[in-house]
Amino acid sequence: MAMKSLVVEDMKVTALKESAFVKPLSLEFRQNGKRRKWDMIKVHDSVTIIIFNITRQKLICVKQFRPAVYFSSIPEDDRKSGIIDTTKYPPSIGITLEFCAGIVDKNKSLAETAREEVLEECGYDVPVERFEKFKTARAGVSTEGTRSNFFYVEVTDDMKVNQGGGLVDEGEVIEVVELSISDAQQYVEAVDNISPAGFSFGLVWFLMKKGTKTP
Amino acid sequence: MAMKSLVVEDMKVTALKESAFVKPLSLEFRQNGKRRKWDMIKVHDSVTIIIFNITRQKLICVKQFRPAVYFSSIPEDDRKSGIIDTTKYPPSIGITLEFCAGIVDKNKSLAETAREEVLEECGYDVPVERFEKFKTARAGVSTEGTRSNFFYVEVTDDMKVNQGGGLVDEGEVIEVVELSISDAQQYVEAVDNISPAGFSFGLVWFLMKKGTKTP
Repeated sequence: MAMKSLVVEDMKVTALKESAFVKPLSLEFRQNGKRRKWDMIKVHDSVTIIIFNITRQKLICVKQFRPAVYFSSIPEDDRKSGIIDTTKYPPSIGITLEFCAGIVDKNKSLAETAREEVLEECGYDVPVERFEKFKTARAGVSTEGTRSNFFYVEVTDDMKVNQGGGLVDEGEVIEVVELSISDAQQYVEAVDNISPAGFSFGLVWFLMKKGTKTP
Repeated sequence: MAMKSLVVEDMKVTALKESAFVKPLSLEFRQNGKRRKWDMIKVHDSVTIIIFNITRQKLICVKQFRPAVYFSSIPEDDRKSGIIDTTKYPPSIGITLEFCAGIVDKNKSLAETAREEVLEECGYDVPVERFEKFKTARAGVSTEGTRSNFFYVEVTDDMKVNQGGGLVDEGEVIEVVELSISDAQQYVEAVDNISPAGFSFGLVWFLMKKGTKTP
């Protein structure tokens, strides 16, 4: 799952300082009379968008380098020093295949947030009323518990207004990839996916509900 | 989604101290020549088990109080003081419906870990060779990136050796619930689920692959 050009180097592990994205905390409470403590992080809710291009009959997905996936793919013995050998572990082990997605951190509706992500990451300019929310699930039930909102949207070639790729200023390097219905079926059948379980859910949901639709 | 008896009270938010489960860190690296920093937590890999009781034709699932889901369901204004009003927000908003699952933190095979979770949480004693791993996905691709391993196992009534319920000494309070195939179909169709996206994935996968199987 190579990306066109991706170089990752000089990686080290440091202590988390004040973060806009990851806020660790503990909850202390009494459950049925017993004291409990639960460690977690406060993060943002998210939107995930299944984009189906009905002109091309392709699912529009994204590949990107996910630092957390990269780190978690490295055996403990090779990361405990705090220095990661990026020549031993190529960045490809941290490249995921996902639906277009983003966090909900602006004062906008979920559908509007979804609309913006589709434009930024995939380059399609889609009217907000075309976004259909079909599932709200919970992400990281153990450590996060936030809402993960799944949308479905159909696009056409003439809505494509730019190349997508994410916000370069924010360090996003996103590659837009197209999956045929047969690609999607094969990906669901494969045992090992460098993708969230929500991606598999979305693919299976799409195949059941929409996969036979024609333009 | 009430549980038989669940009282949660006297909840406050405190700073995360040294934790066995949530280890915050930052990755600092250079990506295509640009310095980046990524905030995340180090957590454990997990196993999730779809259990189908072929005697009763029921999926065996679990309900439990998830503190992180409870916290994340409360509006920011009502949690920023650090004191949570547990009379205003009933514990039911933090009760999830999930497949049996657990973290991989012992020196055992994934299938053996799955076997132990099924016994502890659901009370079925199942030979390890019956566990079929059908998917490895990535959890929390933004903040965790760990492996989420999905197994399928068929059980029979005569494998039921105890009531399940989790490890009470570790504070687990788990209720075993049975879903018919029609319940599963309805849950997939519902828009709002207090469940992980991986639960929806597992339900849809089961319905496609196994849902028509008879004893």
